[in-house]
Order: sequence, then structure tokens, then C-alpha cells
Amino acid sequence: MTPQTIGFLLFDNAEELDFVGPFEVFTMFSEVARKKGIDSQNNVVLISQTGKDITGAKGMRIGIDYAIDNAPKLDVLCIPGGKGTRTEIRNQKLLDWVAQTAAQCAWVTSVCTGSFVLAAAGLTEDKNITTHWAATEEFFELGLKGIIHKNVRYVDDGNLVTSAGVSAGIDMALWLTGQMYSIELARATQRAMEYDPAPPYAE
Amino acid sequence: MTPQTIGFLLFDNAEELDFVGPFEVFTMFSEVARKKGIDSQNNVVLISQTGKDITGAKGMRIGIDYAIDNAPKLDVLCIPGGKGTRTEIRNQKLLDWVAQTAAQCAWVTSVCTGSFVLAAAGLTEDKNITTHWAATEEFFELGLKGIIHKNVRYVDDGNLVTSAGVSAGIDMALWLTGQMYSIELARATQRAMEYDPAPPYAE
Repeated sequence: MTPQTIGFLLFDNAEELDFVGPFEVFTMFSEVARKKGIDSQNNVVLISQTGKDITGAKGMRIGIDYAIDNAPKLDVLCIPGGKGTRTEIRNQKLLDWVAQTAAQCAWVTSVCTGSFVLAAAGLTEDKNITTHWAATEEFFELGLKGIIHKNVRYVDDGNLVTSAGVSAGIDMALWLTGQMYSIELARATQRAMEYDPAPPYAE
Repeated sequence: MTPQTIGFLLFDNAEELDFVGPFEVFTMFSEVARKKGIDSQNNVVLISQTGKDITGAKGMRIGIDYAIDNAPKLDVLCIPGGKGTRTEIRNQKLLDWVAQTAAQCAWVTSVCTGSFVLAAAGLTEDKNITTHWAATEEFFELGLKGIIHKNVRYVDDGNLVTSAGVSAGIDMALWLTGQMYSIELARATQRAMEYDPAPPYAE
């Protein structure tokens, strides 16, 4: 198991939990692996178009490591959602980078309406995907193409893994950790995050 | 229901998901309330001792809104965990601010080892609390005081609400939203975050 470089493509108005959920999973994996003496840790990097820091959809300012022009070669690409995706689906320079980068990645992933960006980059036509439950109609109204599945946490179609809304990225990233490394290490990561969720006020 | 000011006390090596989970809940509540035409939105602010940006335990750089000396009056204080808490429990200036601020808040909350900071500020003696499952022994070895409950997502004792590790802050913040506003609005927030968690690789 060689170390994997995982890149989050961020932009203004990216939804905070969309990327911090998987970020926590992938970085916690590294801590878990290190404690077990496993020489296989994720290198997790944050990328924006220009390399400038971004401000999330809910107002949090996030530091960025690389511009798209100087980012390291990625093994995994992760694109979060948030209202900023509606701007980025018209940003041809960014979409070209997404298409070019995705072609070289072992895994291409999104959370929430991050799938809109993958679709606009031409990566989802005839593919099984998902997105936020409330965004399905808008996806097709925008002329984007894909076979959207509902009421699932994530969908994998080959090396394309798309998640449902916001919090679903945590489940997706844990699943992907199991695929990339081992189910045992994914479970250990889940324990380290104490991810035994119990939403209150069940309906 | 008057708008509430919710302050996260951040510091270097605070754990990213510990604070971004509840941050997403409290800010998503505002979006949900606004869409429903409810004139009751959270003002969510990020505070550090000096007002300088911080770097989380997993390396993410986070922008800060206020120093402790110029922070607005808070209704809710939230303290995340992360390895940085082991430094802050010896930071008397910060602990004094925590104790003073907590005395004026409607709710005092923590995630993960954020309870160590509340304990060091003298707020947990003879109180029912929780923390990360792996940190209980260390809590007592450090001479901190409190009645720790295990295998729970969060514990409320009066206006003190402490959460278990990392991801448990999401459950706590949703529960608190129901207490502060209404169960209906907490459920709507949960739907907006698509928080129907399904951890993979169940044991």
C-alpha cells in the first residue's frame, strides 16, 4: 500500500462540512496508520484555482495549499458541493483542469452538488451518480447529464464515487478508505472519529 | 425566539471536524430558518486567543473573526477537542476567559477533549460529562474533575452539554438546536444536511 495523494478542489462558497468530513476521514486514517506502524499515509492537500484561500458557503475562511497550476499529481480528487458549484460549472478553465486531473486519478469523488462540477466537466454522462436530495431537478434543468440515484449515501461507478448531501461525504470517505487500504483500517478510522452517529429527534 | 450568538473557541491543533460539524449545523439552521421566513438566525463566530488564524490538528488553516478581548457577548460557547487541548489546559489567560464567558452563556458546550478545557476552567466538577472514548483515563491522570459517562453521544447537565469524540458534535448540535428553537427546525436542519448517516463496514 503506497501513500496516496488526495486533493480537495475548493472554491468560494464550497460547503464546509462537504469537504471537512472527508478531510477528517482521510487525515485521521493517516494518524491511525502511523500509530499502527503502517508505512502508508495519505497526503491530503487543498487546492483552489489560483491558490488563494477560499471562503466557504457558510462563511468559514479556509487556507489553501496549491493552485491548480502547481498542485501535485493526485491519486484521489474530491470535489465538495455548496452554492459555489453553480458558479464553477461555468468556469471552463477549472472544468478543463477537473477533466484532465480526473483522467489521471485512481478515484474521482464528489460530495453533494460537487457532482454538478464533475458533470459539467463531462465525467458523468451515462454514469450512475448521486447528489443532494433537493438538487436533482436543478441538475437536469441545467442540462447536466448522469443517471441520478436517490436515497443512497454514495454511488460508485467504476472509479467515480459520488455522495449525497453534505454529511454523506463522511460515509463515502470511510467506504473509500476500505477500498483503498483495508476494511480493518477503515473501521479503526471510524473508531478514532467515534463515528457511531445517533441523530436526535428521529421521525 | 431571538437570534443567538454562538462562539467557537479555536486554537492551534483543534480537531477540524470537532468544530466544523457543529458549525455546519448552526449555520445551516440559519439558512433553513431564513427560507422559512423565520426571523431567528444564529450569528456564528470563530474566536481565538489573539484573533489570529489557527491551524487545526490535521493541518487545515482556519480564519478567525475575533480575539477573546473583542469577541461579542455569546449565548452559546462551543469548545472543540484535538491535541491542542493539552496545551490550552495550561493556558491560564484562556481558561479565565472560558470561565468568565461560560458564566454569562445560556449554553456551554464541548466536543471530544474540549471537555478537558472546560474542566481545567473549573466548570465540570461534580457535573455529568463525556469526552472521546479513548481519553477518559488521561482526563483523570491530568487531575481534571468530572463524572464521565461512556458510550453516549452527548451529556447535558443543566446548561453544560459535552459531546463524545469528533463526529459526536454533529449529534449534540442538532439536539441543542431542538432545545434552543424547536424540534421541527432541528429536523429541517438535519434534512438540509442530509444527515441520515450510514457508516459502512458495520461490525
